[in-house]
Amino acid sequence: MTPDDFRTFGHTLIDWIADYRAGIRSRRVWSDAKPNALLEQLPSSAPTHPDSPESLMHDLERLILPHISNWQHPMFYGYFPANSSLEAVLGDLVSSGLGQLGLNWAASPALTELEERMLEWMQVASSIPKSMKGVIQDTASTATMVALMSARERSTDYALARGGLQSEAQAQMIYFSSQCHSSVEKGGLLAGFGKDNLRIVPVDKNFDLIPSELKQMILEDIALGKKPCAVVATVGGTTTTACDPLPEIAALAKEFGLWLHVDAAMAGSAMILPEKQDLFAGLEGADSLCLNPHKWLGATFDCSLYYVNDPEHLIRVMSTNPSYLQTSTDGQVKQYRDWGVPLGRRMRALKLWFLLRLEGIEKLQTRLRRDLENATWLETQIKNTADWTVLNPVRLQTLCVRHEPPELEGEALDKHTLAWVNQINQSGAAYLTPAMLEGRWMVRVSIGALETTFDDVAHLWRLMQEAANP
Amino acid sequence: MTPDDFRTFGHTLIDWIADYRAGIRSRRVWSDAKPNALLEQLPSSAPTHPDSPESLMHDLERLILPHISNWQHPMFYGYFPANSSLEAVLGDLVSSGLGQLGLNWAASPALTELEERMLEWMQVASSIPKSMKGVIQDTASTATMVALMSARERSTDYALARGGLQSEAQAQMIYFSSQCHSSVEKGGLLAGFGKDNLRIVPVDKNFDLIPSELKQMILEDIALGKKPCAVVATVGGTTTTACDPLPEIAALAKEFGLWLHVDAAMAGSAMILPEKQDLFAGLEGADSLCLNPHKWLGATFDCSLYYVNDPEHLIRVMSTNPSYLQTSTDGQVKQYRDWGVPLGRRMRALKLWFLLRLEGIEKLQTRLRRDLENATWLETQIKNTADWTVLNPVRLQTLCVRHEPPELEGEALDKHTLAWVNQINQSGAAYLTPAMLEGRWMVRVSIGALETTFDDVAHLWRLMQEAANP
Repeated sequence: MTPDDFRTFGHTLIDWIADYRAGIRSRRVWSDAKPNALLEQLPSSAPTHPDSPESLMHDLERLILPHISNWQHPMFYGYFPANSSLEAVLGDLVSSGLGQLGLNWAASPALTELEERMLEWMQVASSIPKSMKGVIQDTASTATMVALMSARERSTDYALARGGLQSEAQAQMIYFSSQCHSSVEKGGLLAGFGKDNLRIVPVDKNFDLIPSELKQMILEDIALGKKPCAVVATVGGTTTTACDPLPEIAALAKEFGLWLHVDAAMAGSAMILPEKQDLFAGLEGADSLCLNPHKWLGATFDCSLYYVNDPEHLIRVMSTNPSYLQTSTDGQVKQYRDWGVPLGRRMRALKLWFLLRLEGIEKLQTRLRRDLENATWLETQIKNTADWTVLNPVRLQTLCVRHEPPELEGEALDKHTLAWVNQINQSGAAYLTPAMLEGRWMVRVSIGALETTFDDVAHLWRLMQEAANP
Repeated sequence: MTPDDFRTFGHTLIDWIADYRAGIRSRRVWSDAKPNALLEQLPSSAPTHPDSPESLMHDLERLILPHISNWQHPMFYGYFPANSSLEAVLGDLVSSGLGQLGLNWAASPALTELEERMLEWMQVASSIPKSMKGVIQDTASTATMVALMSARERSTDYALARGGLQSEAQAQMIYFSSQCHSSVEKGGLLAGFGKDNLRIVPVDKNFDLIPSELKQMILEDIALGKKPCAVVATVGGTTTTACDPLPEIAALAKEFGLWLHVDAAMAGSAMILPEKQDLFAGLEGADSLCLNPHKWLGATFDCSLYYVNDPEHLIRVMSTNPSYLQTSTDGQVKQYRDWGVPLGRRMRALKLWFLLRLEGIEKLQTRLRRDLENATWLETQIKNTADWTVLNPVRLQTLCVRHEPPELEGEALDKHTLAWVNQINQSGAAYLTPAMLEGRWMVRVSIGALETTFDDVAHLWRLMQEAANP
């Protein structure tokens, strides 16, 4: 494709995306596609000769749009906001347009240095401790795994340089609460720890980790000859927005030499709000921190920020230095290839740069506050309505909700819960995620899509009541 | 940003990228930026209030362009082609425009099913064994690490479900040649194996792994009570395009129960050429395979394809299944979250779809053959010119070159090599990567940028001669 062909087709696609976003309210939120319906319409092999841009446009409309869930829809209340702001979309377009590949600093000085500065911008805006240094990872899952590998190597005094984890006599132990994201267990298992060495710490009535229980487990394990290695604390857990008490956990981590990783993947966006900083008090005791601007903030997937207190340790665990990657400037600049798993890097900082410059911090704060106010309003409505319950403390923009008519309990209540939420989801008018809490189904309402207004949330509340009281 | 603002600024950026690509020959290839020169020009914190699109455009020109290396330049001969084709740029734009997030199938049926089909298109076009099933990963580094974790769990009969790697009595051993990519060692260390358990197998004069040496090492380790776990074979190694003999290695892997991972990250693009299929003979004995269409083929970073023979095993190692990710269609469709580390997924298949449809296989084959012919031509020139040497068998598009005047050897030769290559690189006229081969510096010439013509390669050869014979 020549640059002129790109120009023509690019303008068409920009308009198509603008039209898609402008008209998104007319679409259903969650896909009603049948399994493999798209697959069956796609030919089984690539074309030999070129197709035209027109035929591709036709298939985008005919094949792709009917088979997607519209995450950018204002009536999307599922999982968490996965906001792909139009500013970030353009920043990411520039990234692939320039075709940079950050194998090392010299391969793209701007890729490295813009990333460094964007991490600093986010650090300042989010009041992240000044001692920390950051890097962009793809997802919180990867960041958590990297944190646990880093913990493993600190705890074993760099066993990777010797016989590896298998040469360690003492079992290395990891602690996290039952409200932690599933990626914590996954990261621990992938890092080689073994399920027997992952310990689930009980939570209190707010779903927050209980420090005294953590201490008890640590002492038990030490008595058994095991070695406490790491604790993962969550601020704003996926299911219930659990916020583990960082100061107490950090004190235990210090006392027993544990690595403290703080997973604020979702809630981290709220760090730009001074009034929400109390959720993050104690962060200065953490060894690593992850927050995902590709969620609520709008930086478009993937853009997960990983901050560490000791970058030298991270580099020691992650570094490779073959001759073809060595350059004369190695000592003066950052080599982000040594800050994570992949060698190659996209210029992901561009989408953060576009977002932060074209929006500015104040507008971002205003949008997040809008969502928090809408969540508080919905919480009040639900609490003041008979038979409805909010099951979690609403610290941010996620409510865990159940409609509990007095005649229903146990499995009958589960059936009722799934019935009304599925009715809403299948109608296409909104999307909410059902999830288990203490063995029973409930419904998560996560408010915060880019275009979700108060009227949308009020409309959702009507839909919920209609679906639960048919 | 409203959809209309996006439309206006989007058109501007499409034109800007088209102009950048059309005018790229007038730019220097490799950056001459000073360390931290950009960093010092970027403010230390994000703006409070919005900047205008115009000021951002101004800074793209003023700050970003002078501080990048132009990987898409036709005179780029470094590392490997990291082609960001304009077709793929547009496919990726649609991905972020739609803002899909593939947490599970239902979250975006099209994301999952288009990915499945694109993996099949590539499988058919590349004659990858029909028994294999594929998934998109970010990079070959990650794919290799995933392969080694999979090997670890097969070899230990799922130690992750028990005490993990640290509970294994036998040391788990990994084998690979000295010409393997640095990510193999890194992946092994991150997977917890420990450097003592990574064994470097000697190579022959073509830089290919010697199977008899591999067998010897395996037998030695078994005699010592260790457990051979995995072997990584390379087809088209980074430094020299080494091609390890797959049939012999596969036979050993089978005999001793080793996991065989084939790293064809760079060379895998050539699998669409029937005449290059001989390099990949024996692939049906592999457990896993990685190839990177984001390199020579042009799918724009990141798009690394990872194929496995036993997807059930991969899923067993990688799966997580919290309640909020369960849906009613779980058994009928693929859940790619369980095929790799990250939970969230971009709709990366779109860029492959755009590339393969708008180009067609035949045009892609023609472009790759152009590069192979240019490489053969350059090889002939160099071999027919006094004092010049090609150090590797030129099986694809990469030449390892040295200018060896009779009076120079040892460190003096190294100094000469680095002098002429640095002169070219610093001039901005072309970029070549210096690398070590058997303890001495040489120069890699990797041909295959999207717009590199025969005239460009002829021009490069003149530049090389001028620089080496001043």
